[in-house]
Amino acid sequence: MPTAQLLLHCPDKPGILAAVTDFITVNKGNIVYLDQYVDRVDHVFFMRLEWDLDNFLIPREKVEDYFTTLYAKKYSMDFKLYFSDRLPRMAVFVSKMSHCLYDMLARYTAGEWNVEIPLIISNHPDLKLVADRFEIPFYVFPITKDNREEQEKKELALLAENKISFIVLARYMQIISDDMINAYPHKIINIHHSFLPAFVGAKPYHAAFERGVKIIGATSHYVTSDLDAGPIIEQDVVRITHKDSIKDLVNKGRDLEKIVLSRAVLKHIERKVLTYKNKTIIFS
Amino acid sequence: MPTAQLLLHCPDKPGILAAVTDFITVNKGNIVYLDQYVDRVDHVFFMRLEWDLDNFLIPREKVEDYFTTLYAKKYSMDFKLYFSDRLPRMAVFVSKMSHCLYDMLARYTAGEWNVEIPLIISNHPDLKLVADRFEIPFYVFPITKDNREEQEKKELALLAENKISFIVLARYMQIISDDMINAYPHKIINIHHSFLPAFVGAKPYHAAFERGVKIIGATSHYVTSDLDAGPIIEQDVVRITHKDSIKDLVNKGRDLEKIVLSRAVLKHIERKVLTYKNKTIIFS
Amino acid sequence: MPTAQLLLHCPDKPGILAAVTDFITVNKGNIVYLDQYVDRVDHVFFMRLEWDLDNFLIPREKVEDYFTTLYAKKYSMDFKLYFSDRLPRMAVFVSKMSHCLYDMLARYTAGEWNVEIPLIISNHPDLKLVADRFEIPFYVFPITKDNREEQEKKELALLAENKISFIVLARYMQIISDDMINAYPHKIINIHHSFLPAFVGAKPYHAAFERGVKIIGATSHYVTSDLDAGPIIEQDVVRITHKDSIKDLVNKGRDLEKIVLSRAVLKHIERKVLTYKNKTIIFS
Amino acid sequence: MPTAQLLLHCPDKPGILAAVTDFITVNKGNIVYLDQYVDRVDHVFFMRLEWDLDNFLIPREKVEDYFTTLYAKKYSMDFKLYFSDRLPRMAVFVSKMSHCLYDMLARYTAGEWNVEIPLIISNHPDLKLVADRFEIPFYVFPITKDNREEQEKKELALLAENKISFIVLARYMQIISDDMINAYPHKIINIHHSFLPAFVGAKPYHAAFERGVKIIGATSHYVTSDLDAGPIIEQDVVRITHKDSIKDLVNKGRDLEKIVLSRAVLKHIERKVLTYKNKTIIFS
Repeated sequence: MPTAQLLLHCPDKPGILAAVTDFITVNKGNIVYLDQYVDRVDHVFFMRLEWDLDNFLIPREKVEDYFTTLYAKKYSMDFKLYFSDRLPRMAVFVSKMSHCLYDMLARYTAGEWNVEIPLIISNHPDLKLVADRFEIPFYVFPITKDNREEQEKKELALLAENKISFIVLARYMQIISDDMINAYPHKIINIHHSFLPAFVGAKPYHAAFERGVKIIGATSHYVTSDLDAGPIIEQDVVRITHKDSIKDLVNKGRDLEKIVLSRAVLKHIERKVLTYKNKTIIFS
Repeated sequence: MPTAQLLLHCPDKPGILAAVTDFITVNKGNIVYLDQYVDRVDHVFFMRLEWDLDNFLIPREKVEDYFTTLYAKKYSMDFKLYFSDRLPRMAVFVSKMSHCLYDMLARYTAGEWNVEIPLIISNHPDLKLVADRFEIPFYVFPITKDNREEQEKKELALLAENKISFIVLARYMQIISDDMINAYPHKIINIHHSFLPAFVGAKPYHAAFERGVKIIGATSHYVTSDLDAGPIIEQDVVRITHKDSIKDLVNKGRDLEKIVLSRAVLKHIERKVLTYKNKTIIFS
Repeated sequence: MPTAQLLLHCPDKPGILAAVTDFITVNKGNIVYLDQYVDRVDHVFFMRLEWDLDNFLIPREKVEDYFTTLYAKKYSMDFKLYFSDRLPRMAVFVSKMSHCLYDMLARYTAGEWNVEIPLIISNHPDLKLVADRFEIPFYVFPITKDNREEQEKKELALLAENKISFIVLARYMQIISDDMINAYPHKIINIHHSFLPAFVGAKPYHAAFERGVKIIGATSHYVTSDLDAGPIIEQDVVRITHKDSIKDLVNKGRDLEKIVLSRAVLKHIERKVLTYKNKTIIFS
Repeated sequence: MPTAQLLLHCPDKPGILAAVTDFITVNKGNIVYLDQYVDRVDHVFFMRLEWDLDNFLIPREKVEDYFTTLYAKKYSMDFKLYFSDRLPRMAVFVSKMSHCLYDMLARYTAGEWNVEIPLIISNHPDLKLVADRFEIPFYVFPITKDNREEQEKKELALLAENKISFIVLARYMQIISDDMINAYPHKIINIHHSFLPAFVGAKPYHAAFERGVKIIGATSHYVTSDLDAGPIIEQDVVRITHKDSIKDLVNKGRDLEKIVLSRAVLKHIERKVLTYKNKTIIFS
């Protein structure tokens, strides 16, 4: 049974929640999900709402229009409307490491995720075999300092052609330019192999080893033009000891990376993430 | 039954473990604890050994001398020898927050820790009531920019007079000068209210809130002249969400701080921590 | 600024949330907290709502009456109304172990908890010293098979006299009879030193050691007439290894117990726990 | 560089460690790993030792014989000797769920694990596609009450033919008979989808939901003839809330299951697990 999914935020005022839920129920929409949160410092109201479309009186193609006219303007809302049967379309960018890619493709194939993955892009040919195994088109765009702009243009054309709605960087070892970031604002998900903001940048496991930390982490975040500084979606950690070598850290971290990235991607696929002021609201 | 506790490290060579354990067993010492670790990159051997003194043939006051002559020089060992019935003597430094102090005094009073706590030092009078409740002498040394040197001298004299072997900074909100650090090298334990090296310095909960992390932490470390950069003894974390205000972070963090600090102090009391190259070896 | 705190559950129907929030806002109550949850299987609506009483048009002594008449009957609600400035009154029951007691009294004294603790009850005199240190009345009721009924009657009288609203069993090593449980339904909080439902009953650390588990836990729950089977409020775990003796388990578990119990008690004090079908709804 | 890997346990006596390490070093073996543990209650000595074979004076095919003659008999040792270049050969048993299988095959293919996987066995044809993708032979043995004995005989023949050294039950939904268990004593690794010993048997997620626990777990253990009661190798947990449906538990549990199983399998592949009295010693 298809549902409509509404995410919004607006200045907090009395009666918003009542007004919005009223809109759904008066029009015979059966609410199947509601989570809301009020930032009591900044006075901002956040909500995610989901309702069955079956007996809903407003045709789905007119919902956005009606909601804008009746509520969004009145309450200065910033909102997004999705339908559960229009799956998000995800592109995966990889380089040479396969663990995150395998983890996501296994979930995709097993039907864990309501998503389409029309293509995989890489700057190296190494993981073509993995893509072939799962019968997903694989495109190689080798990147050098000199050709980045040109190659990204081709990539953007390919993404547009495939109606890609968001991108996952699955240990993709290349800088993404601002042009691509601006084309997919808060729609590019990266996995960084440290507990951010500790160990920003390259070789975080080496840095963690040098510092002698007792716990390492991984962080999944939306990519912004600030390196490793975009809104954090999910983090997790694992305990290490003095006995762990850098290689042990890399091994333990690999499991963290794939789990943390997949949790973040799932939340995005479920349309349960709102970004606000370089942070994320994660609905339950 | 009193035991001897030996901690050592030295360049790794074949036969060290056999030689040292042989020394104990030949002299009728019953080994009750042995943990060792070899750094295979730097080729360093680390060991903690504990044996009953009861039937040990070498008198306890001569063990250090014999061991130095027979093994330490031969293998270029850096070693420390303790006796389980000579309790470490711990001074606690506090300011205004009581949670770490209460946690440690409760453990001390309940007999959880084999330690002596002859005194508590503070730069504020606020926690005198807590010290009184547990009948522990409480000394106030108000610190200003101008009198730090002078006050620390008095503190050092008081510590020496009380034969203090190590210091715990239980949310003590003052910089410790190099003079004091040098008087207690790797013998001052601090609790920092963040997951180091993230959020070094003041107001880490505010910084964590601003950054929008999904997990916060606490770190206990030995104090060195580099702020918040000494060898880490213990860390732990707790999950937070977008719903948590700075006040919530402070509350959740408080529980972390006291548990992480107490775990670190216990390891130190048990003489299970070795420092090496700004890191710690924590024996099991 | 005092607030009203409303917890309710009822059969889920469209419009409840709108109706209830409307009741507050129309009467000039400023909502400062709202968390709701719908059980989509059993079709039950749960909500916790909190609003400033300052400009609220309905006098606080009439709120319950009005709400019952206007909404509770209409929607078949089961609800509870509290006021933030009427603190819950908590009795602590202890036996011989002090760690949970110290942890709670330290929080109480430091002002972490909005609660009154008018008395401590024990079946042993051992912890009188602790109570004395915090200047809280301490009553000893030694319990034997033969005198339980009689002693509990005296305890109940003492509790009533002190207007106790809930009881915390802080490692109290006695069975509570059904009479007392019925006098405080879902208002007696216990800490069980295992990850329930594993290791129900006595000596869970011994049982965990025997079974060779790699993780131990602690569970805080409301007491019902089924031993260790009441609604679970909070649980947590800690990793152990083959190196840990039963004594190590007891030591590690002690830290878990006090943290888990204190988290559960805090949730209860904040009036953020609803029980339903032998489970708890924990509001955020 | 190939190494020898020795695991042993024996009654604890002075000098064992020295004797065994001496055996290696005297014969010019370079020790690259040593971990030992003494059970001080039962007085049992456990050790894992690994050394380079390159300059080792005793030919690899004679090491077992020499060690038996010189030490094992003398100290009543129970020991196992492996060589790092003789990879363990692992069979995977599956039914219909793919998540654990994908996780292991991805690791295998990526070279994370030093193991051979010559075949996959199932009681259903469903996962043949997965096996095909990774080009691993897949055999279907449908099991009914009536044909179990006969089918297991065929399976055992197939396992023997493929020189299988251990079996992993990756959510294999069939009882293993004692004949097969006895053919692979402590060499069949299972993943149970609960925090054992809680929720033994079928449908643990349903049982966990009913009980209202706040944390769920997964347990990997060696299979013995007692259902879900064999030596535990690894466990882990994840936090849940009242908002999680049974389906949510299944989803969250799936990630736990695959990570916990893969950690256990890795420890087994690395020959770092010793079983003793229905428990495991896990070397570091």
